[in-house]
Amino acid sequence: MAEQKKMVEAITSMEEDFAQWYTDIVKKAELMDYTSVRGCMVIEPYGWAIWENIQKILDAEFKELGHENVSMPLFIPESLLNKEKDHVQGFAPEVAWVTHGGSEKLTERLCVRPTSETLFCEHYAKVIQSWRDLPKLYNQWCSVVRWEKTTRPFLRSVEFHWQEGHTMHETAEEAKAETERMLNVYADFCEKQLAIPVVKGRKTDKEKFAGAEATYTIEAMMHDGKALQSGTSHYFGDGFARAFNVTFQGRDNSLCHPFQTSWGMSTRIIGGIIMTHGDNNGLVLPPAVAPIQVVIVPVAQHKPGVLEKAKELQAQLKKQFRVKLDDSDQTPGWKFAQYEMKGVPLRLEIGPKDIEKGQCVLVRRNDREKIFVPLENLESAIAEQLELVRKGMYESALARRENMTYTVKTLDEMKKTADNKPGLIKAMWCGDVACEEKLKEVAGVSSRCIPFEQEHISDTCVCCGRPAKSMVYWGKAY
Amino acid sequence: MAEQKKMVEAITSMEEDFAQWYTDIVKKAELMDYTSVRGCMVIEPYGWAIWENIQKILDAEFKELGHENVSMPLFIPESLLNKEKDHVQGFAPEVAWVTHGGSEKLTERLCVRPTSETLFCEHYAKVIQSWRDLPKLYNQWCSVVRWEKTTRPFLRSVEFHWQEGHTMHETAEEAKAETERMLNVYADFCEKQLAIPVVKGRKTDKEKFAGAEATYTIEAMMHDGKALQSGTSHYFGDGFARAFNVTFQGRDNSLCHPFQTSWGMSTRIIGGIIMTHGDNNGLVLPPAVAPIQVVIVPVAQHKPGVLEKAKELQAQLKKQFRVKLDDSDQTPGWKFAQYEMKGVPLRLEIGPKDIEKGQCVLVRRNDREKIFVPLENLESAIAEQLELVRKGMYESALARRENMTYTVKTLDEMKKTADNKPGLIKAMWCGDVACEEKLKEVAGVSSRCIPFEQEHISDTCVCCGRPAKSMVYWGKAY
Repeated sequence: MAEQKKMVEAITSMEEDFAQWYTDIVKKAELMDYTSVRGCMVIEPYGWAIWENIQKILDAEFKELGHENVSMPLFIPESLLNKEKDHVQGFAPEVAWVTHGGSEKLTERLCVRPTSETLFCEHYAKVIQSWRDLPKLYNQWCSVVRWEKTTRPFLRSVEFHWQEGHTMHETAEEAKAETERMLNVYADFCEKQLAIPVVKGRKTDKEKFAGAEATYTIEAMMHDGKALQSGTSHYFGDGFARAFNVTFQGRDNSLCHPFQTSWGMSTRIIGGIIMTHGDNNGLVLPPAVAPIQVVIVPVAQHKPGVLEKAKELQAQLKKQFRVKLDDSDQTPGWKFAQYEMKGVPLRLEIGPKDIEKGQCVLVRRNDREKIFVPLENLESAIAEQLELVRKGMYESALARRENMTYTVKTLDEMKKTADNKPGLIKAMWCGDVACEEKLKEVAGVSSRCIPFEQEHISDTCVCCGRPAKSMVYWGKAY
Repeated sequence: MAEQKKMVEAITSMEEDFAQWYTDIVKKAELMDYTSVRGCMVIEPYGWAIWENIQKILDAEFKELGHENVSMPLFIPESLLNKEKDHVQGFAPEVAWVTHGGSEKLTERLCVRPTSETLFCEHYAKVIQSWRDLPKLYNQWCSVVRWEKTTRPFLRSVEFHWQEGHTMHETAEEAKAETERMLNVYADFCEKQLAIPVVKGRKTDKEKFAGAEATYTIEAMMHDGKALQSGTSHYFGDGFARAFNVTFQGRDNSLCHPFQTSWGMSTRIIGGIIMTHGDNNGLVLPPAVAPIQVVIVPVAQHKPGVLEKAKELQAQLKKQFRVKLDDSDQTPGWKFAQYEMKGVPLRLEIGPKDIEKGQCVLVRRNDREKIFVPLENLESAIAEQLELVRKGMYESALARRENMTYTVKTLDEMKKTADNKPGLIKAMWCGDVACEEKLKEVAGVSSRCIPFEQEHISDTCVCCGRPAKSMVYWGKAY
């Protein structure tokens, strides 16, 4: 038990220092390691396995909806990046430039892709000829690079992994529907698989993607009350298509420009999982993406029959679950602490007395509830408990968000709330970017989104007092 | 049938111009597209689906053998690349250098990884402490960049996708066994899944990987008699571990350096599939990795019941196979040519007469054999035919390799054979690099490998006449 205590002490408590708690967890749970490349990390096996599980679920959904995977180049020539004006203004300040190949200076600089709209457009211009070629529903899994000044593991890094969907459609309506459809895929994935409640909405013009007509977002609230943009879906109209000369022959034989979308979710969501569900004992992982769903810890494993039974259960359960048996010579106490740190959703304890009674003990990671279950029908008991873990995680995250969401009507209230109460703040807005800037300056909050589910809080803008256009979520964000 | 003819005419015949035949196929089968980034390509959905199938099979085998996936940074600081002398000499001339981040000049240049030994060593130095931490069996799927002057789709490109395994072991024997084990995984994968016969052997010192003690290779022969290095496995001894100060406390408490391996297979193998199996009608894909294993072509599809039956078969077969129904309004002739071009292993034709007789027609892509099969037990008939496709492809590739492999004893014979007979040439070698260089100069051949299966052809080196050490495969290579 001394060892258990030692391990737990090694994490800073989140109440004491949330940032340090986060850093402790990503290291102690062996999700990542730092490298000598600023802002770039090693994602270690346990962290990468979470990403692989996320990929598997999302990729199957994308394909089910008719998307096809492709691979675009890592590099974008400077002239190609320059083709869409808003886009290059947004991204040029934060790209890495390749200037030399071997010992030779390049005639044109190449940037390492920060996102791939330009590359997809170049390709689409070649392969789209007729309305019969539409829609084109492409996606790629890759890493991209943005030269961020301040970086944090998973949340903001120079290199990060993601998927980027890029689609082209015959009509604006179809493209808008795709934008919405994919936002819903992300929202459902977060809520149903990751147990992270999200707010769906639209970004203000100030916060939207460089070159997009509209950016839609799902926003989640972290343990410390800050918001995390967890997935975005962009509608481009035909702006890029015009800039890149992507055309097709329409049904009436006229030459048209297609309408475009892009949408992405990244390894950042791993940071979201940590900060939504983690506690002072470590990670708490949603069963759908946990590399280990059930850890079997034998109790008094030197006693005859215990290890045999544990191995038998492992063999039986691994057909249906991701299961690990820890039969190392560490103490059960050390193992309990270790797999709590790693966020394993269910612990299965089995000792001589349990075997006698034909039962085992299941302990849920999220609420530490302990259940004695008979060994017959163990699979269905585990499936049920895993679902309870997911549900419990979701409900507790939702309750926290509701408790930490405030409504304000005046600038003064906004400032007081922002200063004293971590969380999201609902307030009316006139639609003017000047008010967004003032709120940032005065209260330190930015607009998170204009939620699809609007409420009428008052008639006037929280900042300027002019007539309000919409209710906005404001907050501090990662 | 006019359309069918038109499509087939669009490929240059391989006898006329093999290089053009290859280029025609990669484009017409929609495997890839060129981009404005020199030597970097778009891998289109049909090409990427082949790679995903390759990944799925290999990844499962790696994991079964205990390997874990990780993700290393895209960049390597110049000082890190410089740590191992032979390695930097080999790779520095062909890397892309990032010199600027945003508008800021970097204090140290970063290269885009050409391979990741240096990054793995940096990480291993931190996470390996004791013999209990060994072996470390890591792998990553990623893309790497080498600034090649002359590029060809899949075969040699500036950016290419691959997996790179990097392992650390307690003893030299274990590391050597891993090197051999992974070479066998590659060889079995090529022969059993891709139907590509390979020669297993060791590279000469001249041809080995920069920084390795030994490089093992599998070499395949393409349709034109040239060799393709299709997978490599390297043994490093403890050279990198010493350069990067990777140490562990041994069983006797002494401080030791671990022994290292790395091994890789890349998208190059897609080029190998094309050039081993393709013919003048297009691609011929091994069933294990074909994106479509069975294409259903309805005949006289306007007749009552035909499309219904075709759809019914599709629904039935897709549980077990990757199946596509083409019910577009193109003619059957056009469709036959289209899916031959795409290399689909089996075509299933179904028309009114077949339905009457309760049968369908299966046509094998590789040998165009036509088989009438009853609709009951269709799944097992298809599984059987797919296996016959694989077997037929393998046997025909093996027969070609045997027919195009020659044995020579003198420099004169070597020159005559190399000049007149495309293929591999077996000849004895003294082990001196000077003879390798002379053979390159005089006969235009390089050493492909020192095969594990040695033969005694003569007592003396084919080049210098001194006593021979081993039999070597020589040839022209991609």
